[in-house]
Amino acid sequence: MFKQFSIQAPSAEISAELQQKIDTKTKPLGALGELENIAFQLGKIQQSLSPDVSKPKMIIFAADHGVVAQGISLFPQEVTPQMVMNFLMGGAAVSVFCDQHKVPLRIVDVGVNAKLEAHPLLGDRKVAFASKDFSQQAAMTSEQLDKAIQAGVDEANLAIDDGVNLLMFGEMGIGNTCVSSCMMTALMGVNANDSAGRGTGLDVAGVSHKAKIIELSLKRAEQETGQIISDWSAQTLAEQIGGFEILAMAGAMLQSAQRQTAFVVDGFICSVALLFAQKVAPDVREYAIFAHQSNEKAHKILLDHLNAEPILSLDLRLGEGSGAILAYPLIQSACVFLKKMASFESAGVSDSK
Amino acid sequence: MFKQFSIQAPSAEISAELQQKIDTKTKPLGALGELENIAFQLGKIQQSLSPDVSKPKMIIFAADHGVVAQGISLFPQEVTPQMVMNFLMGGAAVSVFCDQHKVPLRIVDVGVNAKLEAHPLLGDRKVAFASKDFSQQAAMTSEQLDKAIQAGVDEANLAIDDGVNLLMFGEMGIGNTCVSSCMMTALMGVNANDSAGRGTGLDVAGVSHKAKIIELSLKRAEQETGQIISDWSAQTLAEQIGGFEILAMAGAMLQSAQRQTAFVVDGFICSVALLFAQKVAPDVREYAIFAHQSNEKAHKILLDHLNAEPILSLDLRLGEGSGAILAYPLIQSACVFLKKMASFESAGVSDSK
Repeated sequence: MFKQFSIQAPSAEISAELQQKIDTKTKPLGALGELENIAFQLGKIQQSLSPDVSKPKMIIFAADHGVVAQGISLFPQEVTPQMVMNFLMGGAAVSVFCDQHKVPLRIVDVGVNAKLEAHPLLGDRKVAFASKDFSQQAAMTSEQLDKAIQAGVDEANLAIDDGVNLLMFGEMGIGNTCVSSCMMTALMGVNANDSAGRGTGLDVAGVSHKAKIIELSLKRAEQETGQIISDWSAQTLAEQIGGFEILAMAGAMLQSAQRQTAFVVDGFICSVALLFAQKVAPDVREYAIFAHQSNEKAHKILLDHLNAEPILSLDLRLGEGSGAILAYPLIQSACVFLKKMASFESAGVSDSK
Repeated sequence: MFKQFSIQAPSAEISAELQQKIDTKTKPLGALGELENIAFQLGKIQQSLSPDVSKPKMIIFAADHGVVAQGISLFPQEVTPQMVMNFLMGGAAVSVFCDQHKVPLRIVDVGVNAKLEAHPLLGDRKVAFASKDFSQQAAMTSEQLDKAIQAGVDEANLAIDDGVNLLMFGEMGIGNTCVSSCMMTALMGVNANDSAGRGTGLDVAGVSHKAKIIELSLKRAEQETGQIISDWSAQTLAEQIGGFEILAMAGAMLQSAQRQTAFVVDGFICSVALLFAQKVAPDVREYAIFAHQSNEKAHKILLDHLNAEPILSLDLRLGEGSGAILAYPLIQSACVFLKKMASFESAGVSDSK
């Protein structure tokens, strides 16, 4: 499955010319801060002195998780299909923000535990009606893993074939903060007490219960696989404790990178998808733009590990791509300044002494 | 001069209903973080459950400063009129970002040290060709102070009379980081070594020289006024060490608040203008939305003092309203979610257990 990816970091050939263009704009050196880094990154990815993100697309992957049977979420599982309907009807946060910025939105069902009616904005790539409860057994079969990854690959291809030059990913799935924390612990070796957080609003006891479930689940999986976690392959990790929408996102990120297309990483769950994708192909990181640091405590640990400087830090903890779409106008601004600002020379402005 | 302002904090009558509307949107409680605070603040200011910022305006006040004779800036004074031209021609950062977001831009000359040609985007409210060098003498006369404040008042009135519902302020003036640091030291009593920063890119020796000039200037002014700084009135402070564009911004902020119109505070210099406005009328703070925390170290101290949580933290240090316009789409998002998102009830989504 993962052999299809052969990801190259963007060529550095254009770097000097790019930096020169950034530095001669009418502003003190470095005065546009993080926007200059984004402009530089996008310029390298697109191998262009005027990178362009004017054709973005938001793709939300949705799925359910067997592990919710362990009482690790504040919301009942039926909220997943209800929120999918809310996305489709235009009433969710990500819907109204996509509308604000005229960004097309697509929802992809990769494992929602309900039969969903066809809708023009809905992609049907259902792998199963929810993953299995990984505290009791492997979350999915290898065939299901393949299907989830392929769903992401196919969605990325669809978009890029259509000319999309910036992909944004979001997710919906009650319980997926728990799944992500579990994956983070397995991928980074951090304690479950550090990877487990409040999710949609758990109290201290709820977080502690969640951490316990993660520990037990990982012990169960070590026994079943006969391997300690640090020896797991990406495939073993995904089968044992993955979530369909998280793996689909990882697949979409890998394919975006493969096709040298920048993508935006939303919050904690999205960042875990990237962490997983990195295990498959480390250079995928070069194509990632980090939208925001969420209120989920583990997200800070993870972003530091990824050496990421997210654009926003607004105490968001909503997921569903909401942070990515909120960051979009700033990513656009990075392209706008690089393309349109005057240089000291063209504007006849004196440079510093 | 300052007697014309009688500013009331927004009525709290609508607060409960506003919070209720925010809390029943289809998202976990508080999950939109800072955006919820902005929505709440704007709702109170406009006394509306659907506040609206769809008619914004950016006003940049420009002036020069006699104190640049002391070598406190990296750029020569002629850059002020050159950058004004750059704003007018559409080549500056703030120009291209205003264009990106379709926000009208106006430049107001309140003291540029050059004769500027008429231009449709340029307002001529010149008080003088630069303030005096405050290391040697008072920066301005009381008549000049009146004119600078009035320039801001008149600009705010023009905009609000025209239906503008969100004012954004920016500034241009070589040397005005030094002027702002000096005002901050006088207003807050902090050490000049804490208020002086890199400005457009000074090195350590340059910053240290700037702090020295600030200390000497304040000593000079204490002697001349026969009063210690903490006894100074707003008027004395402004006359002794003010800058025309900073005072015009303060005037515009005061008038916006007087007319219950929200305004956006850009970076360090803008924040100092607000600090000064607060000395005149404390409740002006209630109408301020803080766009970003800049790379200027004193800005953090000042924002903490103002109990402000800025929207962005992108290491910007450009001024000219660039942070304000970059934050604009997020302020808009705060209104959009409040107006357009579905509630749990309207979307048929189950609330948390």
